[in-house]
Amino acid sequence: MPRILLLNGPNLNLLGTREPHIYGAETLDAIVQRATEYAQSLGIELRHVQSNHEGALIDALHAARAWADGIIINAGAYTHTSIALYDAIRAVGLPTIEVHLTNIYAREPFRHQSVIAPACVGHISGFGAHSYLLAVQAMAYLLQKPAEQV
Amino acid sequence: MPRILLLNGPNLNLLGTREPHIYGAETLDAIVQRATEYAQSLGIELRHVQSNHEGALIDALHAARAWADGIIINAGAYTHTSIALYDAIRAVGLPTIEVHLTNIYAREPFRHQSVIAPACVGHISGFGAHSYLLAVQAMAYLLQKPAEQV
Amino acid sequence: MPRILLLNGPNLNLLGTREPHIYGAETLDAIVQRATEYAQSLGIELRHVQSNHEGALIDALHAARAWADGIIINAGAYTHTSIALYDAIRAVGLPTIEVHLTNIYAREPFRHQSVIAPACVGHISGFGAHSYLLAVQAMAYLLQKPAEQV
Amino acid sequence: MPRILLLNGPNLNLLGTREPHIYGAETLDAIVQRATEYAQSLGIELRHVQSNHEGALIDALHAARAWADGIIINAGAYTHTSIALYDAIRAVGLPTIEVHLTNIYAREPFRHQSVIAPACVGHISGFGAHSYLLAVQAMAYLLQKPAEQV
Amino acid sequence: MPRILLLNGPNLNLLGTREPHIYGAETLDAIVQRATEYAQSLGIELRHVQSNHEGALIDALHAARAWADGIIINAGAYTHTSIALYDAIRAVGLPTIEVHLTNIYAREPFRHQSVIAPACVGHISGFGAHSYLLAVQAMAYLLQKPAEQV
Amino acid sequence: MPRILLLNGPNLNLLGTREPHIYGAETLDAIVQRATEYAQSLGIELRHVQSNHEGALIDALHAARAWADGIIINAGAYTHTSIALYDAIRAVGLPTIEVHLTNIYAREPFRHQSVIAPACVGHISGFGAHSYLLAVQAMAYLLQKPAEQV
Amino acid sequence: MPRILLLNGPNLNLLGTREPHIYGAETLDAIVQRATEYAQSLGIELRHVQSNHEGALIDALHAARAWADGIIINAGAYTHTSIALYDAIRAVGLPTIEVHLTNIYAREPFRHQSVIAPACVGHISGFGAHSYLLAVQAMAYLLQKPAEQV
Amino acid sequence: MPRILLLNGPNLNLLGTREPHIYGAETLDAIVQRATEYAQSLGIELRHVQSNHEGALIDALHAARAWADGIIINAGAYTHTSIALYDAIRAVGLPTIEVHLTNIYAREPFRHQSVIAPACVGHISGFGAHSYLLAVQAMAYLLQKPAEQV
Amino acid sequence: MPRILLLNGPNLNLLGTREPHIYGAETLDAIVQRATEYAQSLGIELRHVQSNHEGALIDALHAARAWADGIIINAGAYTHTSIALYDAIRAVGLPTIEVHLTNIYAREPFRHQSVIAPACVGHISGFGAHSYLLAVQAMAYLLQKPAEQV
Amino acid sequence: MPRILLLNGPNLNLLGTREPHIYGAETLDAIVQRATEYAQSLGIELRHVQSNHEGALIDALHAARAWADGIIINAGAYTHTSIALYDAIRAVGLPTIEVHLTNIYAREPFRHQSVIAPACVGHISGFGAHSYLLAVQAMAYLLQKPAEQV
Amino acid sequence: MPRILLLNGPNLNLLGTREPHIYGAETLDAIVQRATEYAQSLGIELRHVQSNHEGALIDALHAARAWADGIIINAGAYTHTSIALYDAIRAVGLPTIEVHLTNIYAREPFRHQSVIAPACVGHISGFGAHSYLLAVQAMAYLLQKPAEQV
Amino acid sequence: MPRILLLNGPNLNLLGTREPHIYGAETLDAIVQRATEYAQSLGIELRHVQSNHEGALIDALHAARAWADGIIINAGAYTHTSIALYDAIRAVGLPTIEVHLTNIYAREPFRHQSVIAPACVGHISGFGAHSYLLAVQAMAYLLQKPAEQV
Repeated sequence: MPRILLLNGPNLNLLGTREPHIYGAETLDAIVQRATEYAQSLGIELRHVQSNHEGALIDALHAARAWADGIIINAGAYTHTSIALYDAIRAVGLPTIEVHLTNIYAREPFRHQSVIAPACVGHISGFGAHSYLLAVQAMAYLLQKPAEQV
Repeated sequence: MPRILLLNGPNLNLLGTREPHIYGAETLDAIVQRATEYAQSLGIELRHVQSNHEGALIDALHAARAWADGIIINAGAYTHTSIALYDAIRAVGLPTIEVHLTNIYAREPFRHQSVIAPACVGHISGFGAHSYLLAVQAMAYLLQKPAEQV
Repeated sequence: MPRILLLNGPNLNLLGTREPHIYGAETLDAIVQRATEYAQSLGIELRHVQSNHEGALIDALHAARAWADGIIINAGAYTHTSIALYDAIRAVGLPTIEVHLTNIYAREPFRHQSVIAPACVGHISGFGAHSYLLAVQAMAYLLQKPAEQV
Repeated sequence: MPRILLLNGPNLNLLGTREPHIYGAETLDAIVQRATEYAQSLGIELRHVQSNHEGALIDALHAARAWADGIIINAGAYTHTSIALYDAIRAVGLPTIEVHLTNIYAREPFRHQSVIAPACVGHISGFGAHSYLLAVQAMAYLLQKPAEQV
Repeated sequence: MPRILLLNGPNLNLLGTREPHIYGAETLDAIVQRATEYAQSLGIELRHVQSNHEGALIDALHAARAWADGIIINAGAYTHTSIALYDAIRAVGLPTIEVHLTNIYAREPFRHQSVIAPACVGHISGFGAHSYLLAVQAMAYLLQKPAEQV
Repeated sequence: MPRILLLNGPNLNLLGTREPHIYGAETLDAIVQRATEYAQSLGIELRHVQSNHEGALIDALHAARAWADGIIINAGAYTHTSIALYDAIRAVGLPTIEVHLTNIYAREPFRHQSVIAPACVGHISGFGAHSYLLAVQAMAYLLQKPAEQV
Repeated sequence: MPRILLLNGPNLNLLGTREPHIYGAETLDAIVQRATEYAQSLGIELRHVQSNHEGALIDALHAARAWADGIIINAGAYTHTSIALYDAIRAVGLPTIEVHLTNIYAREPFRHQSVIAPACVGHISGFGAHSYLLAVQAMAYLLQKPAEQV
Repeated sequence: MPRILLLNGPNLNLLGTREPHIYGAETLDAIVQRATEYAQSLGIELRHVQSNHEGALIDALHAARAWADGIIINAGAYTHTSIALYDAIRAVGLPTIEVHLTNIYAREPFRHQSVIAPACVGHISGFGAHSYLLAVQAMAYLLQKPAEQV
Repeated sequence: MPRILLLNGPNLNLLGTREPHIYGAETLDAIVQRATEYAQSLGIELRHVQSNHEGALIDALHAARAWADGIIINAGAYTHTSIALYDAIRAVGLPTIEVHLTNIYAREPFRHQSVIAPACVGHISGFGAHSYLLAVQAMAYLLQKPAEQV
Repeated sequence: MPRILLLNGPNLNLLGTREPHIYGAETLDAIVQRATEYAQSLGIELRHVQSNHEGALIDALHAARAWADGIIINAGAYTHTSIALYDAIRAVGLPTIEVHLTNIYAREPFRHQSVIAPACVGHISGFGAHSYLLAVQAMAYLLQKPAEQV
Repeated sequence: MPRILLLNGPNLNLLGTREPHIYGAETLDAIVQRATEYAQSLGIELRHVQSNHEGALIDALHAARAWADGIIINAGAYTHTSIALYDAIRAVGLPTIEVHLTNIYAREPFRHQSVIAPACVGHISGFGAHSYLLAVQAMAYLLQKPAEQV
Repeated sequence: MPRILLLNGPNLNLLGTREPHIYGAETLDAIVQRATEYAQSLGIELRHVQSNHEGALIDALHAARAWADGIIINAGAYTHTSIALYDAIRAVGLPTIEVHLTNIYAREPFRHQSVIAPACVGHISGFGAHSYLLAVQAMAYLLQKPAEQV
């Protein structure tokens, strides 16, 4: 049974309480619950880590080398600044999908650039919490492709 | 039964024959066929238009006002230059999803900017032909949300 | 009796139905009707072409060499990107007035630059459909000036 | 009877004597005379102020709050640099039309940007002294529109 | 008894009447009155000058050399463009505090840069009319420090 | 009795020992002591957190939602780079004042931009340790204003 | 007998009548006639397409896959803006030579960049209509080189 | 006997008292005295105007049309920002020499650009008060050249 | 016996396993072992800290004030973004050498800038693990120079 | 019999031995031999100069004024930096053709700009050593045109 | 008797024959002759060096350390690119005056920046060959000032 | 016995006499003497070339192909501008180490970029004359590595 890491970055722990007109009213726990169940329904085990610490996110990525088959990451604001996360994704070498709740290209200019994007396989954004489910669906697809095609 | 327009821009008619190491070996017909069937399985009718003409893409968007409930668009190279398409998507006012076969953020710098992105609800890229299926899945989700939430 | 071409670019066919809080509620047909009658009252024949195709706009400009004495152009989004239209206006060599419904300098930054402006005699923007009438009035003035002053 | 302020900025007092191949051979007095009469013919009283002092132009704008219904401004070189004039137009809150004798977009790059444009309703440029008459005509139109439409 | 110059730049004379949702509803006279009384309560004499003329602001700064011990300046829009004011503050050599009613960093990009900031000791912005009182408080602190620490 | 969080970022723990010609010779403990007493004198309880970890600063901001009425933040070098802190301040939603010991606009260019400024109510910089007292004074003012005015 | 496509973009149909001081007095028909004969003398069949429509140029490039051995392209103004043409040249995969009548590097800055250049084998510009003959000569050379050297 | 205007801009009235390590210890009066006498020794009458008001400098330039044969200008900080002065020099049409006390290219970056330079015949900077004498010497040379060579 | 801190930043813990074609196949432990022994042979004690946490790196730098005589730092990706590390190195005040395994100037553009470089004495990059030995050698040299020469 | 200078810049003496996958395996001597013979066959005498010294290239251009009728130049890396060569070509005033072995627009960004291009009649690049023959052919064409057409 | 080096850079040997409408019709020999005599009349010996080689100009600057008291330099096109000349002027340490025949600020943008200017005492440009005489006059002034004032 | 070229660029011949506070008081001869002896102690023959001529540096690099096994280069100011040197290093193909006396990243911005860096194996800067010894040590390491690892 394949296993994937769902990694959430800074401020995402406030989901549901933080600016709901932008990010929606569902809490992170509820969203993770939904994603975990959906993954399970596709035969995938999903483990979740959230941290506001860039270093802790890197540590979690490193640890994933020992157990995970793929990574879904919403790096929050670190998306736009963290070369260290980019390097970590590259170094870990697992297929990685970048996710955002909002359409980052319709927001402030400093959110238009994703520093980690070139290290990821694909990108899904703008569908609110549903973005996570789409990413799980996409990961299921990637994991059943022969390795050399990823 | 909701109906959606799948719109493909310049050079996508060559899919399967053009630089398969970048874009994959499946033809556009085969991909559209798969997407149509997948849409059908979700109770959605999908109609397809492809053109190399920016104006024809705009015309198709305008026409969609009369019959469609949503739009999935892969604007190809016009993604990066066409304010006219951006205006057309805005003017048409239907929920629109931007799709790309490749992860445009891992390619040449001139492909990193999407001019049409701010007019779209969400963005899916990097999963090859599977990006279209994810977009159909996402559109199904959008169309069942109450209108005021879109 | 002098004749002028009124040329409208992409998405202007949707006038009256598209984002009326920005562009007003009058249809393009109604506006052209008003402009035609106003031109007539000044002894000028006005012919109208609208297209969403950049190439078709260039074709119409070329054709105008055979019959027109001046051009009023609202190039829509192509205003900001089309060097080809700039070249066409230069090549045609007729006095040309650039028109916009809105004050493009009070909108998104990408609308602040007009690529075609340096090829035009003058510029009128921000008065809604009335911009067209002012342009007709301005063209009447230009056409009665001795040629070497244009 | 509505009243409008016609405001001319630095160096415009030299009109008719300064670089006539660029700005034309008519003096500012003659132009103002023509504009005043044309306004009168439309039932509008036009008062004129010219100054080379940025501060004096701001003072005149402030004073207009007490008596004017609209403003036509050719801010000359201050067009391209004066945030203070931009603020003044905004603060005064009267409908304001930006005018230029020449097509500023066909001249040196530093003339392509108008700092005051976003505070104005509309923009007319490139028709020589006739630009002022078109602006009077445009103002007549604005002043008879219901207030909430301006 | 130490004396300070309170200098207000362009458009600040309209305070209370100009865009109250941005700048507040209190008039400049009332604010100056409050600041003067507060200064007095701290044993400081405050004199006020307001002008829309950049040159007049420079003249006032020069004159302050003869009588003042410190300067509080809200240069309005000249904040963002006037190297001449920067030079004047430097030349005068008195401790100077920059003040703004609004948080200029939360507004239009052209308000984010203060040309005069590097010539000032400190900066206070965003507290409405209360910014002036904080500046008076800060100046009281600066004036009682031994001169070599300023 | 209102309560505020005083948050200090990286390297500020070295105050008094680090480059005293720039930052002054008083230790952070002494400064916090003074600020706490001054706050108390105004009827405000001040709690202090310092960390060199960006993530720990975010955690402290999140925690403040449960107990604080306002925030005073000197984010040190993270001021210039941390979108995550900007997001955290926005998400927490308490009135926040940005403070700096030095006038950051008179230093290296990379210190001229504050990424967090647009999320704050106001900004005080350049008065050394006294900046903190002015911020406490400003916060006292903000907390007694009716909520809708903040 | 090898066959090549000569593709001319927007406004080139006006050659001979458009700004002859820049582009020369020979018509496009005459130039194509000369190029065709010269190609024939080198044992090459040359077919010509001109269009003002970006989409039609792409269509012609796609069609060339079925019959041509090489492409000579003067994309006119689309040279500077069309990523779609760049993609089309790449996708078609035939050896392509970029041609310009004028030395585009001695003209306006916006003509200095060729978006399509990186997709072409070589570049010839500045020799007026003779540029086409040089390109035919160059293509003759390319077509007789062993395929792997192209 | 030829006559020239010596025009000094903002803050130059403080010469001798302002930052003498940068600008020298001689007062403006003393410098003007020296320049006047030196001009006289070359058979030239020199009249001097100093103002901190941009508008007053423009007025003085305009007035010079009636009596002067040449202009020497040290525009101070307006050198770097005033398009209005550039326009005024152009409009006046007299041979104009730009002077600076310091080498502006060895100072802050914002002093490296002279907006008025392209309107002047020549440029002398870096020789302290002696720059004025060199400019008088240069003007004497210009005024004895046949007019068409200027 | 002098003591130095060897500080390694994010992702360097993966050395030997991460992209060995770029970073080499030796593990961090082995490299540190070699550097420690080499330092010992030069009469220097070397202590090593690695962390993926920017804050932990700053803490380690602060702690070094109590025991170390010099610092060798490979800040990994934080090299390019961390003003906080730059401030920490400045604040600590010990001679510091910047080291990189690869030639960062031959890699992606975002690796060309080192934010911390201006706070360091010198820079060594491009020699793989041997870079560390060269840095130890260089530090030995720095530590035997009289203090005022550093 | 017309005479032309073929001028080759830095590192071109290494042709055939330097990076043959980029520049080809033919030596400079062999290429010059071929170009000389081809020129002879067209009735043109070709003289060749190569130098790695920018100054020597300028000297050779100056010397050509005494004997040559045209210039073919491959300035190597100086193409991208040498304003002095640009000035020399302008000063010499002979028709000059810029040549490159490779398509410089498909290489590193710093090779995309040619500083000397605006001083040349035309540009040929991307055809390897054959570029020189095309340039000789083009020069033959230029030299038989009436002088005023060049 | 003080001695100065007059150093002329690339292409200045062509003076009088090169683009006389820009640079004048006098040869370099004649200009140097005039400058030498004028220097002599002021009690200064002037020696002249011209070279098109950047390295030779540096060599001449180095040599001047042994015999010269000051330097007048017209570095031609190297003015805009040569950091090596900037370093050489700095290293030589003699008072240096930058001279240009034309007003470089009224020409192409790439001539607006002088890389060597910050290493020079002053700058004289725009007076044709007379610029050299003014520079000799300025040098005479500099050489009689007490050393510490230079 | 391996042999290496030590190449020094412009102004380095002045070492010891030029700005000793920046570059140190040791002459180039003394430094080269030390480096030669150190190389000898490592079994390496070191030959030295210094020139102020860019072309001569390129010539020396080319000549090194015939006899040297590695190159140590301090290109002085050409470091920041010379693409020709970059090309020469690439073309020569020997392992090359870039050296600087000073930490170029702590100096003027124009010294922060090294044009030649991407062609070099590694980079050592900031240790004064000791930088050369470190480079010799590094080269000894490179030369004993198996060739395919360089």
